[in-house]
Amino acid sequence: MKLNQFGRLTPNTATQLKELDLIGFDADPDLPFAQSLAKNYRLLFPEALNATQQAQALKAVAVDDHQTLATWLDTEPTSMTRTQFYAVALQLLGFHPEFKNLAKSIAQMQNAQLPTVDADLATTTTFLEALYLLLNTRTPKLVTYLDDLANRGFFEDFQADKQTPQYLFFNGKSQAVFDPRQLIREVVWVESDLDTDEDGQRDLLETTIFRPKATDLGTKMPALFTANPYFHGTNDEQVEAATHIPEPNLVVKTQSHTKADVTYHEPEPLDLPRAQASGETQTATSYASENGIYSLNDYFLSRGFATVYSAGVGTQGSDGLRSVGGPSETASAVAVIEWLNGSRRAFTDRTRTTTIKAWWCNHKIAMTGKSYLGTLAIAAATSGVEGLKTVISEAAISSWYDYYRENGLVVAPGGFQGEDADVLAVDTFSRLKQAGDMLGIQAKWEASLHAISSAQDRTTGDYNAWWDARNYRNHLNDIRCDIVSVHGLNDTNVKPANVIRLFNGLKNLPIQKKLFLHQGQHVYLNNVQSLDFTDQMNLWLTNKLLDVDNGANDTIPNVQVQDNVEPQTWHQYAAFGPSQTRTLNLASDWTSERSSFADNATATFKSEHDTSASFEQAIIQPTSAYADSRLWLTQVPLDHDLILDGTPEISLKLWIDAPTAILSVRLIDLGEAQRFGETASIVARDGYQLGYDFKTQDIVEFAPAKATAAKLISYGHVNVQNPVNAYEIQTVTPGEPFNVHFALQPTHYVLPAGRQLALIIHGADMAQTIRPTAVVNYHLDFANSFLKLPLR
Amino acid sequence: MKLNQFGRLTPNTATQLKELDLIGFDADPDLPFAQSLAKNYRLLFPEALNATQQAQALKAVAVDDHQTLATWLDTEPTSMTRTQFYAVALQLLGFHPEFKNLAKSIAQMQNAQLPTVDADLATTTTFLEALYLLLNTRTPKLVTYLDDLANRGFFEDFQADKQTPQYLFFNGKSQAVFDPRQLIREVVWVESDLDTDEDGQRDLLETTIFRPKATDLGTKMPALFTANPYFHGTNDEQVEAATHIPEPNLVVKTQSHTKADVTYHEPEPLDLPRAQASGETQTATSYASENGIYSLNDYFLSRGFATVYSAGVGTQGSDGLRSVGGPSETASAVAVIEWLNGSRRAFTDRTRTTTIKAWWCNHKIAMTGKSYLGTLAIAAATSGVEGLKTVISEAAISSWYDYYRENGLVVAPGGFQGEDADVLAVDTFSRLKQAGDMLGIQAKWEASLHAISSAQDRTTGDYNAWWDARNYRNHLNDIRCDIVSVHGLNDTNVKPANVIRLFNGLKNLPIQKKLFLHQGQHVYLNNVQSLDFTDQMNLWLTNKLLDVDNGANDTIPNVQVQDNVEPQTWHQYAAFGPSQTRTLNLASDWTSERSSFADNATATFKSEHDTSASFEQAIIQPTSAYADSRLWLTQVPLDHDLILDGTPEISLKLWIDAPTAILSVRLIDLGEAQRFGETASIVARDGYQLGYDFKTQDIVEFAPAKATAAKLISYGHVNVQNPVNAYEIQTVTPGEPFNVHFALQPTHYVLPAGRQLALIIHGADMAQTIRPTAVVNYHLDFANSFLKLPLR
Repeated sequence: MKLNQFGRLTPNTATQLKELDLIGFDADPDLPFAQSLAKNYRLLFPEALNATQQAQALKAVAVDDHQTLATWLDTEPTSMTRTQFYAVALQLLGFHPEFKNLAKSIAQMQNAQLPTVDADLATTTTFLEALYLLLNTRTPKLVTYLDDLANRGFFEDFQADKQTPQYLFFNGKSQAVFDPRQLIREVVWVESDLDTDEDGQRDLLETTIFRPKATDLGTKMPALFTANPYFHGTNDEQVEAATHIPEPNLVVKTQSHTKADVTYHEPEPLDLPRAQASGETQTATSYASENGIYSLNDYFLSRGFATVYSAGVGTQGSDGLRSVGGPSETASAVAVIEWLNGSRRAFTDRTRTTTIKAWWCNHKIAMTGKSYLGTLAIAAATSGVEGLKTVISEAAISSWYDYYRENGLVVAPGGFQGEDADVLAVDTFSRLKQAGDMLGIQAKWEASLHAISSAQDRTTGDYNAWWDARNYRNHLNDIRCDIVSVHGLNDTNVKPANVIRLFNGLKNLPIQKKLFLHQGQHVYLNNVQSLDFTDQMNLWLTNKLLDVDNGANDTIPNVQVQDNVEPQTWHQYAAFGPSQTRTLNLASDWTSERSSFADNATATFKSEHDTSASFEQAIIQPTSAYADSRLWLTQVPLDHDLILDGTPEISLKLWIDAPTAILSVRLIDLGEAQRFGETASIVARDGYQLGYDFKTQDIVEFAPAKATAAKLISYGHVNVQNPVNAYEIQTVTPGEPFNVHFALQPTHYVLPAGRQLALIIHGADMAQTIRPTAVVNYHLDFANSFLKLPLR
Repeated sequence: MKLNQFGRLTPNTATQLKELDLIGFDADPDLPFAQSLAKNYRLLFPEALNATQQAQALKAVAVDDHQTLATWLDTEPTSMTRTQFYAVALQLLGFHPEFKNLAKSIAQMQNAQLPTVDADLATTTTFLEALYLLLNTRTPKLVTYLDDLANRGFFEDFQADKQTPQYLFFNGKSQAVFDPRQLIREVVWVESDLDTDEDGQRDLLETTIFRPKATDLGTKMPALFTANPYFHGTNDEQVEAATHIPEPNLVVKTQSHTKADVTYHEPEPLDLPRAQASGETQTATSYASENGIYSLNDYFLSRGFATVYSAGVGTQGSDGLRSVGGPSETASAVAVIEWLNGSRRAFTDRTRTTTIKAWWCNHKIAMTGKSYLGTLAIAAATSGVEGLKTVISEAAISSWYDYYRENGLVVAPGGFQGEDADVLAVDTFSRLKQAGDMLGIQAKWEASLHAISSAQDRTTGDYNAWWDARNYRNHLNDIRCDIVSVHGLNDTNVKPANVIRLFNGLKNLPIQKKLFLHQGQHVYLNNVQSLDFTDQMNLWLTNKLLDVDNGANDTIPNVQVQDNVEPQTWHQYAAFGPSQTRTLNLASDWTSERSSFADNATATFKSEHDTSASFEQAIIQPTSAYADSRLWLTQVPLDHDLILDGTPEISLKLWIDAPTAILSVRLIDLGEAQRFGETASIVARDGYQLGYDFKTQDIVEFAPAKATAAKLISYGHVNVQNPVNAYEIQTVTPGEPFNVHFALQPTHYVLPAGRQLALIIHGADMAQTIRPTAVVNYHLDFANSFLKLPLR
């Protein structure tokens, strides 16, 4: 078990002592050594509610292989060896060492990547410093030791003598001193500047607030806002009916476009009337029975952050229609932020008669969320809206074209073949769940859905102004908040190109930007055991939203990457991307039995009764039912580790016997080996506790799974009629050679010595592209084809 | 979606109206129809905290395909069609029908197995009756509609005007009117009559209580007690080291035993001193930071039941040593019950100075839990202890011999090859987690573990007095409480023989006994969507522990069985077991290519690199690497459905070329078909809410999975030296024929027409028995061999 930690501060001794005193320890450096230990050790058992229980607790801890902490403390020691201190520490942290192993305590701390002091403890001050470090050390329960103590009741009485509940900061982070159990759960309706249902009235946006009771007592809190279109659920049945069957014909495109053609222009703002409100209140009239879904948000409730959810236009409880990441959805998220920052109205109900302010909010907001939720955080960030201080955006789309299209092709998100923007519109239009509400909107909804189906253009797959309106990277220069981006390197749903293109686009902006790349697929990072992500986010949010000058910008590494070979290993880098590139010629640097193939994958897919998932496995195996439908190029086994870091690019010269075709490329890690499983395994069910007497979540970690012969490193698809970009068309003449150049998915990938790089060139991708039935013959000119690898 | 319901009562109209009034509806039958609807419908939106919000909520509901409930109510209707009522009902229950489908509302209710009234509603009384029925109707959220309303705040103010919080009963069940969020979480130490660590002092048993705050205000509550040896976790690392490697040699037994030999005799009770307590208190001094783990218990917190956990002797926080289901563990559970019923002392801490009573308890106790936890519930029940009114025991062991042994063989629980009693002793001895505590107990622990390893006797696998002490079926006549047994028909860990032998043994006792058999493996039943298990348990516990005369005994069917073919289908029966049996001769009723085989499975297992799990799949496939090591008998495909119900038995005549051997038998459902997956799928993540603003759990259901060629129906193992029972030995002479007769695992299994029965006879079972390396040849005399099938 390696518990990496990047978010711990090391303040000077005086600060350490002050902070220890603040949370109730006796930090007097002049107290005799034995007395300090006796007084302070017993405070580390918050379950013990009196001195007798504390004394009992000290008996359950061993200081070495023959005496308990209780008996040893009775000897009035004047010093403590490092070995003794960490023997005790391991037990306190929850490692459960057997007493016969306690002599190796320091080695065990180090094996777990945990910090230790350098020398034996000979003074009270050195003990207090060691105690301070210990409180900020990670535990197997995911959280720090002080967090663990808090979960067990350490701060239960902290607010007892305070009229207005107070924040408590320790090691630069806000501590769990607010009761997360009796939340105020309320719903308000934010008045937007939109009228997407064209009823002449401003669309109201249902907004749900969970805020600790301390806000009612005067504590002003920041808000963690998650724009979550799934908040009231999805329309799974209707999605099944709306999902596309991958088309059997790839059209020959005749119409090329210019950049100007495909540029979206904002329409003039609407001049909408404002309702005459008759009064204002501080009390909402709707209870929020829907449960929040993101455990990172929940974790921060007891640390003095309210959490806010709003699903946006066209969702249950709100007005309007969905736009699948379009400007109206960005505006929905921004409207909620403006209500939170005090510059926009909300009503207590949909009659628009009584307004209600976010009076409990300190007007500082962070956005959080994964996937569509994280996407809308990025979208809102590009508005530059006041009050939005940071976004923590996970597995986010930065341009919807990169989600549903690729280089002039219809390309489904991995795992969701046949999904498209119109399907997602159906999925998230949760007004559908309320039949009474639908009576008034059905006709407009059908018309809007028809418009989306048409605008998304499954026929050509080209970039157009509709997609341009959903490319948030057009507006990066408007971003004024700091950005934390998190992405799974194995995410085939929202592909890593989304985050890397965003991150690279932020490079020169005067904002802080941090990047986390993990080995997961389309999942959250906060419950992965090996990284102190949550604690780093505490440092970050305490800095951004509570104005604590804790050095978060410098302490948190710019780029943190989880290793794909060494379990529980995280690297920190100053930047993402290669220090050098290597360009490999497909003729001279690779071996292939042939340079031509006929793509008959659709027929094979049918005859093999494959699924998208089984295709993805089959196509990368050395022996494959798809062998005839691909080229298989290999390199010799590596004699040293190779680290890919960045975006591989490929340039191919080829001819085909048709006027158009799909071309797919996969870069493969070849060689029998135990690699990480697709999903992280549960290390401790419900082991991650989100507050005192509060919710729990599973702790997970990636571990080597069953040996496999090959693993996908990176991949890409292109319509051969789009050799340069997604809107300019080249005419392909059967039999005549042409060039294509495109980027594969960016990655960070360690390929250990002994493994081989393989490159697969094939046609249609059964899992993601359409499935053409016409067989196309591909003839590659390897001598004029190149793969450029980014290397660290 | 089929929402089976067996626990709903139908009281007379007067009672229905009284109960509606009790929970806040206007149940005046003389109120004009339109007024009653207008007043009562708006109460079904607990999120709406004022009249404006309620009016808004009525607009979101459609009464048909052209008007909302709000506009329809404005017409002051004098009647309501069934179709209209259930159009509204489907929306209220959370089915989200589209308005175009509302005309088919009654059919949709019926498809979901939900109850409807018979006629259109023409009077206020008929509306109120329909409303009463609706409140007791199940929802897709697992709970009843009234439970769902409660989860959304319906009962939030119920206790507001009461000095002492009161119970509320509706439809015979205790309702969620207690706040489950601010629990008193406390730990006490129960004084037992044991001294398993032989230190001359009574073993203290750490006991954790979670009780609603209402107890502090005077409400006396019953206790749901779970004896959970895993409460403080398990020793996974040490278990890995302790797990046995399946032995390569099967011993030739020389010593036969009599019943008297293997009968356990209780030792004389110890005469242990009692500590002199110096005072008594009502306030515990230890906070319970460990989280309860069983969602059924948690569900009952807000319904006025305290939950209690105790791990027993030899666990963290307690004294003593483990005995793996032995009398000291039964006594541990009984001691806690005696504290709860008021007849035994507990202390606030381990210094034994201050006593504390379960003063908040009404002295009525139920035990709950699965696996080892449910086992200890059965164990405690056999004590006849006062106050224990019922146990709800899931996947429980009724005799530990049936868990770790079978017919003179070492047989591991499925999935845990190499586990044995001594391994479980290591697993649950959670005192190991506290190094300081271990300093004083290490030597005694090692000695006790050695004694267990010896007594369990892996050498012969025979039944002995040590196992007899762990056979709770010896004491069934002492049971005085009512028993609910739940078991998965696909549980290979604790095999169904445990529950059926128990259930059959209870047949003539003057107690109530109920049996649930589901299609799961070793899992809880309470979050399976298709059955109202939780609600039935509410009826049951309200009757047993709160003395409400609700007819639970008659309402809950004696036997409820989940169908293995029809999804979401539950059968109710008066009894378990066959109405007839059919005896099949292995020569005349079956087809087999041969009647001899050589068991070489261990070698195949190695060469195939199989695991226990892959072996279990491979051995039942028509084409198998183990084909030479088995006999494969088939019947012709069935021309009609066959329902097995009970315990198949087999009588074999054979000879072998060795003095001993393992003989295994598997009954197979043969034929390519989509059968239920091994585990239930998640229907709604966190969809099952356990109280107002409280914990959630996933809702699951069994569904047909990928087609398979065969499925195991039942199986059994025997040591050929144990033809009659597990302690009497027959000498087997190589080459000389002998008979064996033994029972397979009981089951309830529907074999649809078109499928085939197959019977596999083989030697060692790589997944469960030891793995002998010597090849044994088996020669069956089919003409004198028979399989007896129990049929319904």
